Amino acid sequence: MKSYRKELWFNTSERMAFINITPEVQACVKESGIKEGLALVNPMHITASVFINDDERGLHHDYAKWLEKLAPHAPVEQYRHNDTGEDNADAHIKRQVMGREVVVAVTNGKLDFGTWEQIFYGEFDGRRRKRVLVKIIGE
Amino acid sequence: MKSYRKELWFNTSERMAFINITPEVQACVKESGIKEGLALVNPMHITASVFINDDERGLHHDYAKWLEKLAPHAPVEQYRHNDTGEDNADAHIKRQVMGREVVVAVTNGKLDFGTWEQIFYGEFDGRRRKRVLVKIIGE
Amino acid sequence: MKSYRKELWFNTSERMAFINITPEVQACVKESGIKEGLALVNPMHITASVFINDDERGLHHDYAKWLEKLAPHAPVEQYRHNDTGEDNADAHIKRQVMGREVVVAVTNGKLDFGTWEQIFYGEFDGRRRKRVLVKIIGE
Repeated sequence: MKSYRKELWFNTSERMAFINITPEVQACVKESGIKEGLALVNPMHITASVFINDDERGLHHDYAKWLEKLAPHAPVEQYRHNDTGEDNADAHIKRQVMGREVVVAVTNGKLDFGTWEQIFYGEFDGRRRKRVLVKIIGE
Repeated sequence: MKSYRKELWFNTSERMAFINITPEVQACVKESGIKEGLALVNPMHITASVFINDDERGLHHDYAKWLEKLAPHAPVEQYRHNDTGEDNADAHIKRQVMGREVVVAVTNGKLDFGTWEQIFYGEFDGRRRKRVLVKIIGE
Repeated sequence: MKSYRKELWFNTSERMAFINITPEVQACVKESGIKEGLALVNPMHITASVFINDDERGLHHDYAKWLEKLAPHAPVEQYRHNDTGEDNADAHIKRQVMGREVVVAVTNGKLDFGTWEQIFYGEFDGRRRKRVLVKIIGE
């Protein structure tokens, strides 16, 4: 069994943002030399998500608007977490809705995806450097 | 290390539907010959989910009703994704709430489940053929 | 390839509760002897979650309050699942929002975590004994 590990770094200019990281993850699979296995991709932070969906600008707008309605950032005083001096309680909630991680099949040395599947880094408390972990095991 | 891959196909008659796919996935585990490992089950589409919960008709009704309230299909004009000519923005949202994939332990050649755990294909934009990927690694 | 399996048991005094199980899972990784691999942690029940987030009391209060608003327990008659004699339809919904399982990278014999990542057992229908499965594969 082989294993591979890499950290990818991101820094978004907005509080909430979605970045297509599929090319970086595919490059990890290639670099790993693993032909058959599983790839785990997760943020190493708890106010961000990694998820799989469509690379379509309108949909990302819809996600952002819907998440903001479901767990509004303001007023920050509505969350007890923010009593600690933070203002990101909403980001901890949004990350749970969108999920933490994805596990993707690796087949013939590639991400085993349907036509429209793309991997996104979902940031809900951005404007600072954050890491995504890629761990691949297989043969 | 062994690896196994299979595609399962589904076509629901309704826009939203939940199908118990546990027997098909268990058959994959048997066919794989893998005794100890991990099984990944995910739709290869981005308007569907694979999730684990109860095979109870009332609960599925509750899920459908609750999801429709949380992310209504209509009016379709409320979503910017639908400006592309699609009408399924709500399905992309519902899939995120219910999750993309499940990873299940394989122990002694079987899905390692509690009493009530069953695997479902959750369709949110049906009435066409769609695939679920089963990837199993282990020994 | 090595594999490891353990069940952890929990019994919460409240209907909804969040328990930090990181030390127990880390002990499993150590006991497994696995240095590089993947750890799957999931409840064997369908009204509970395993998720990764912050060990901060205010945030847990915010999660509980937000989930109760999103999928209220009462009135229990609003859910068709509860026609079966159950009163836990809301718990089946809350578990989907928070997710079933986590998959965590194991690197150098440890859970490969960012600074604030902690694993929680999330109970939404407690006051009875329930199990969490830890399955680790790797080398």
